[in-house]
Amino acid sequence: MGCAFDRISGMSEKSITYKQAGVDIDAGDEMVDLIKPMVRSTFSPRVMDNFGSFAGLFRLDFGEKLFKKKYKDPVLAACTDGVGTKLMIAFGMGVLNTVGIDLVAMNVNDLICGGAEPLFFLDYLGVGRLDPKKMAEIVSGITDGCRQSNCSLIGGETAEMPSFYKPDEFDMAGFAVGVVERSRIIDGGRAKAGDVVIGLAGNGVHSNGYGLARRVLLEIAGYKLSDKPEELEGCSIGEELLKPTRIYVQPILRLLDHYESTMPVKAMAHITGGGLPGNVPRVLPKGLTVRIKRDSWPIPPVFKLIAKKGPVDMSEMFRVFNMGIGYVVIVSPRYARSVMAQLSECGERCYQIGKVVKGGELQWN
Amino acid sequence: MGCAFDRISGMSEKSITYKQAGVDIDAGDEMVDLIKPMVRSTFSPRVMDNFGSFAGLFRLDFGEKLFKKKYKDPVLAACTDGVGTKLMIAFGMGVLNTVGIDLVAMNVNDLICGGAEPLFFLDYLGVGRLDPKKMAEIVSGITDGCRQSNCSLIGGETAEMPSFYKPDEFDMAGFAVGVVERSRIIDGGRAKAGDVVIGLAGNGVHSNGYGLARRVLLEIAGYKLSDKPEELEGCSIGEELLKPTRIYVQPILRLLDHYESTMPVKAMAHITGGGLPGNVPRVLPKGLTVRIKRDSWPIPPVFKLIAKKGPVDMSEMFRVFNMGIGYVVIVSPRYARSVMAQLSECGERCYQIGKVVKGGELQWN
Repeated sequence: MGCAFDRISGMSEKSITYKQAGVDIDAGDEMVDLIKPMVRSTFSPRVMDNFGSFAGLFRLDFGEKLFKKKYKDPVLAACTDGVGTKLMIAFGMGVLNTVGIDLVAMNVNDLICGGAEPLFFLDYLGVGRLDPKKMAEIVSGITDGCRQSNCSLIGGETAEMPSFYKPDEFDMAGFAVGVVERSRIIDGGRAKAGDVVIGLAGNGVHSNGYGLARRVLLEIAGYKLSDKPEELEGCSIGEELLKPTRIYVQPILRLLDHYESTMPVKAMAHITGGGLPGNVPRVLPKGLTVRIKRDSWPIPPVFKLIAKKGPVDMSEMFRVFNMGIGYVVIVSPRYARSVMAQLSECGERCYQIGKVVKGGELQWN
Repeated sequence: MGCAFDRISGMSEKSITYKQAGVDIDAGDEMVDLIKPMVRSTFSPRVMDNFGSFAGLFRLDFGEKLFKKKYKDPVLAACTDGVGTKLMIAFGMGVLNTVGIDLVAMNVNDLICGGAEPLFFLDYLGVGRLDPKKMAEIVSGITDGCRQSNCSLIGGETAEMPSFYKPDEFDMAGFAVGVVERSRIIDGGRAKAGDVVIGLAGNGVHSNGYGLARRVLLEIAGYKLSDKPEELEGCSIGEELLKPTRIYVQPILRLLDHYESTMPVKAMAHITGGGLPGNVPRVLPKGLTVRIKRDSWPIPPVFKLIAKKGPVDMSEMFRVFNMGIGYVVIVSPRYARSVMAQLSECGERCYQIGKVVKGGELQWN
């Protein structure tokens, strides 16, 4: 079991009956009651509502117009990711309703890099103790993220594992599935020297580099989560570090839909662990890389604070953090202006940050 | 990032550069090199080999004969699950190459309950320390499970989180996607009083009830993992508790394929947490349940040992463990014998264990 929200997988170890053993079936039921309306709020008409069964079901409605029009040779895209030790900030702040947004973001932003439209999402929560209200808070973040990315939350598992996780801690993993028409897969193959690199602004640290961020800000600099250093302009350390990862699904899908036949988008990259150097060159064919202009976008204050307080070398900063660019779109030069306008219309702050050039590793100028 | 086996998501927290911080990129690369051939061994021709990109890609090859013949109105099925504290046995034994089979089994056995054919699988590993050889052992179990269930392993994430997991411990979550023709979804809707309940033998404790099993055998009875109590007939406690969960994909799909038009299979259940009482009645429509004959199959020695050493009440045993029945198929009476023969031919030990009757909770006789 474990799918479509049965969510009661206790493996507690306190006693010789399961009830005494702390696997609280009632808590599981209470949780399911709390999350049901939130989960249903993410359902597209394609979801076959079978809450409580062994697997979530999602129609591809192939016989019907909408899907048929767009997909002749559909390819499913799938990925999995977690949010890492950003969770420690959530535990420290006692704020649990945003890391779910990060979880969805980390997955759907990966998914769309190949041009796929997200269809559905599933989550796994490993918890020390199943507190229904807390679990519902976590799931509310996940459902927020799903609605932002038009993704139906069709299944989930909550495993109560007291020997693995501390009572108030948990780990989470997400899984996203999308679909892309085969001829429209974006794999970098059509990229050429001279193509333009457009960077989309991020929303803070997103979900990578928290080992370094926490070490510098909380240990070396000795800030508390509630401290509000001048540099953060009114924001506390905790608030800054907990800002949810920006979800790029809607602007990117709208962009791809807009250019139905010309397909000016050659490659896309979600800027996660490894930063720009670790994520952009790898989406291009061998022999091509990007040259990035370092001062072509504003570096958010939090990164300047980390660099100063570490101190952390700027080249290391760029290898660990997104440095203000959460997503990159590489387009043919004649469409660069039009793409920028499209993205701006969708509310994205975006910058021309460089060009595709011959070479291997990312270059700076 | 995190998909299609980049698998380097370090969030270590030791120092102010990521390398000093223990996020060993080289270890990640080494791991990827070790697992690549294993992972590729699971690929069906539908997998678009894009190792290292943001998302795994899987063709539905709609335009082609094989898929088109079987699917006119395809419904995707998806589920997620972990293996719980069975992992503690693996850590204790130092045997890491079988829990991956459990991980796949827990997911694909859920998936097939609705009649779906598994297509692909993804895994999430949260680890204390990324040891490439150990990770490769874990993944080898996952790829074994995938091959047994004709599932392509198209993505995975390994998150190194030293603050969450002990150096030699890890948690794992799996995610499976399959497809079923809409008119052939098995949802219990056609079940009737008088239908026959067929139980398929399991392979030991599978992946549920380990809180209780460990508490009784390792704490109350005081066995070591290497102990070989007479009752286990030559098997050690550790070996017994680590036996991989049986994967029912091949016999069940063959069974469903065999009866192309008659569809004698009314409902199916994977017997996990909750045992027969928790998993069988819920796959039937309201007002129907099953009456199970308790002595209609042999209860494996490990369950007798747990019941004796607890002592654990037999009714509690049946609510926590599979008690020897890992999977249940409910069929119309006139096909019961034929279905049993089919399953036996595939190497399954199976038993007529009861009938569908009117009522709510599971009944015994």
